Amino acid sequence: MKIYIKDYYQTKFGELWDKSLTDLIFETVSVLLKNNNLSACDLSAVFVGNMLSGVLDDNLLLSAKINEILSNAGLPVIRSEAACASGAVAFFNAVNFLKSGQGKTVLVLGVEKMTDFSSEEVTTALASALSGPEQLAGLTFPGAYALMAKVYLEKYGYTQEHLANVAVANHFWGSLNPKAQFRQKISVSDVLNSAYVADPLKIYDCSPISDGCAGLLLTTEKTAVEVSACSVATDTLSLSERKDLLVLDSVARSAELALTSAGVSIQEIDLLEVHDCFTIAQLLVLESLGVCGKGEAGDWFADFDQNKPFALRPVVNTSGGLKSCGHPVGATGVKQIGELFLQLSNKAGARQVSGAKVGLAQNTAGSGGLSVVSILTR
Amino acid sequence: MKIYIKDYYQTKFGELWDKSLTDLIFETVSVLLKNNNLSACDLSAVFVGNMLSGVLDDNLLLSAKINEILSNAGLPVIRSEAACASGAVAFFNAVNFLKSGQGKTVLVLGVEKMTDFSSEEVTTALASALSGPEQLAGLTFPGAYALMAKVYLEKYGYTQEHLANVAVANHFWGSLNPKAQFRQKISVSDVLNSAYVADPLKIYDCSPISDGCAGLLLTTEKTAVEVSACSVATDTLSLSERKDLLVLDSVARSAELALTSAGVSIQEIDLLEVHDCFTIAQLLVLESLGVCGKGEAGDWFADFDQNKPFALRPVVNTSGGLKSCGHPVGATGVKQIGELFLQLSNKAGARQVSGAKVGLAQNTAGSGGLSVVSILTR
Repeated sequence: MKIYIKDYYQTKFGELWDKSLTDLIFETVSVLLKNNNLSACDLSAVFVGNMLSGVLDDNLLLSAKINEILSNAGLPVIRSEAACASGAVAFFNAVNFLKSGQGKTVLVLGVEKMTDFSSEEVTTALASALSGPEQLAGLTFPGAYALMAKVYLEKYGYTQEHLANVAVANHFWGSLNPKAQFRQKISVSDVLNSAYVADPLKIYDCSPISDGCAGLLLTTEKTAVEVSACSVATDTLSLSERKDLLVLDSVARSAELALTSAGVSIQEIDLLEVHDCFTIAQLLVLESLGVCGKGEAGDWFADFDQNKPFALRPVVNTSGGLKSCGHPVGATGVKQIGELFLQLSNKAGARQVSGAKVGLAQNTAGSGGLSVVSILTR
Repeated sequence: MKIYIKDYYQTKFGELWDKSLTDLIFETVSVLLKNNNLSACDLSAVFVGNMLSGVLDDNLLLSAKINEILSNAGLPVIRSEAACASGAVAFFNAVNFLKSGQGKTVLVLGVEKMTDFSSEEVTTALASALSGPEQLAGLTFPGAYALMAKVYLEKYGYTQEHLANVAVANHFWGSLNPKAQFRQKISVSDVLNSAYVADPLKIYDCSPISDGCAGLLLTTEKTAVEVSACSVATDTLSLSERKDLLVLDSVARSAELALTSAGVSIQEIDLLEVHDCFTIAQLLVLESLGVCGKGEAGDWFADFDQNKPFALRPVVNTSGGLKSCGHPVGATGVKQIGELFLQLSNKAGARQVSGAKVGLAQNTAGSGGLSVVSILTR
């Protein structure tokens, strides 16, 4: 059974003080149904990724809440949680549902509402996805990725500038995406002159706290964009259990599964959306995917040139990535796949990659405890 | 593609002060792998249902934690949350995964650790699955079900004794289940003489706060017990939006879907495991499933006789139900299906229903916002 993407919608990502979780879902559902002349009853099921509404807002059983938004159509509504990969895991469950032959059209939602809470509350809530002992020892996600960055810079002789290049590129792409949270271009010196969050990561090395919702309509009826694979793999949660802090095994494993399943090699990928929760994450993911060799991503990415943004192939994070587009954690995985859909449908506006035929989205949970790789083909 | 159950294991349910969430998962995984001569690498994926570890214990991304328990096999591990139906939703995702043709054997886990927290904390955390306004107004789950019970008793002229009959029957079955939290038989007067929790519900009308884990091995290879259907449906979350407080639409919808899918009628079901978080819930579920007509379950259940426990057909809640077996919320849906498996495999010991061929498990989220119905056939 082949699965296709019919449509995609994303709310603006950002600090949306005037919108609730329900408002964000309602906007996404309404636009997708209206633009496709569908009513809720035309859907076979809804799959939703959300990480934090339980921890931050005592808000569980989102399934029934979404059913109310869908005028009590009574559909199966299935919530998944896998930290920052919740959205892509919802997509995984949705693809399996359709492949099992139980329906024609499903809606996949990713949603998060983070800015109604203090950044301390959000940082602590996000740290729920660290291992217990590391969490109790006071580690946070910026701290976890700073450890990886320290080792990376030292081992390969890179500098903070190599990290900064990632932020500069992602802000460049974000400047072309009207739905992005941050739309200003930045320079390497902007990054280097910004405040430290966790040495060697500066504030411009970190993705922001964001609100937003993203939605995909999946279907078994042929459209221009096929879902060629969606694979999930795990790694140890504890950094202390990893053989090598610089290899994201879950990323490598999920990519291997997905590439095999889709029957393509990493060299055939035209564009990537990868999980850049921190600049170091983007470099490590590129290496773990096999786009670059070990220790080479820093040099490879230094070749990105804002004046020839499409020259470096594969093109990476045209959405602006988590860094510039924003990172409403449960929404990110769906947004990444949505960006590939826009690109492969020739609907990506000023950031359109011409002639792109195969795209790969990679969504990480936590510090690499789980990864989802999805491959779309035109 | 047909799906079968290969094995089932349940930890003791109860107040397991000496066991952590990890211990409970470890015990379940170890026994199932060992008894079936499997290693973690023989599994294609793991699906886990858990409601509260995020809210109560800042413990998210259970997927990577389970991967550590599985010796870092790197498998896809997928967490679902649908309040007290989290376990059955994990089962639903697992069945779809296998039906999509991606593997041969998967493990489904349901797990919850509740007794490390005060009952106030647990009650508040559970209330996360109520609608926002009802939650803010101070409604709790005993309160929500007490509202339904009030209406039920008044509308049909029933008394608290009709509710008590359910608790008495479930404790009778629990006395025969070595894994049950409460193993003492009780009488109607025990129930009536117990303290009020929320009028008209007394303490013996309520399922307890519990720890426990349940695990199923599913396979595409033929075994004696087939998964004939697993269907999910939703209803409004808010009680105030329901047309009739006494009709659980999600239960009726999920049952209709599952019965159609399995090609059986409710009259052909030999045994049921239904969601008796409160005694009133069991009566309303029996009516919403179509086992009894509207307003008839109170009378029907009054015929249960401890001296002829197998006489009333279909036989209901031989595990002891949530009431007596215990209700570790994320585990319950898996345990219900596991009990059907034991019965259909002739492994249910003193509570064995002889000749049972078709079983139905019904797992409710919250006050009926979502329901999962699974049908197993020998």
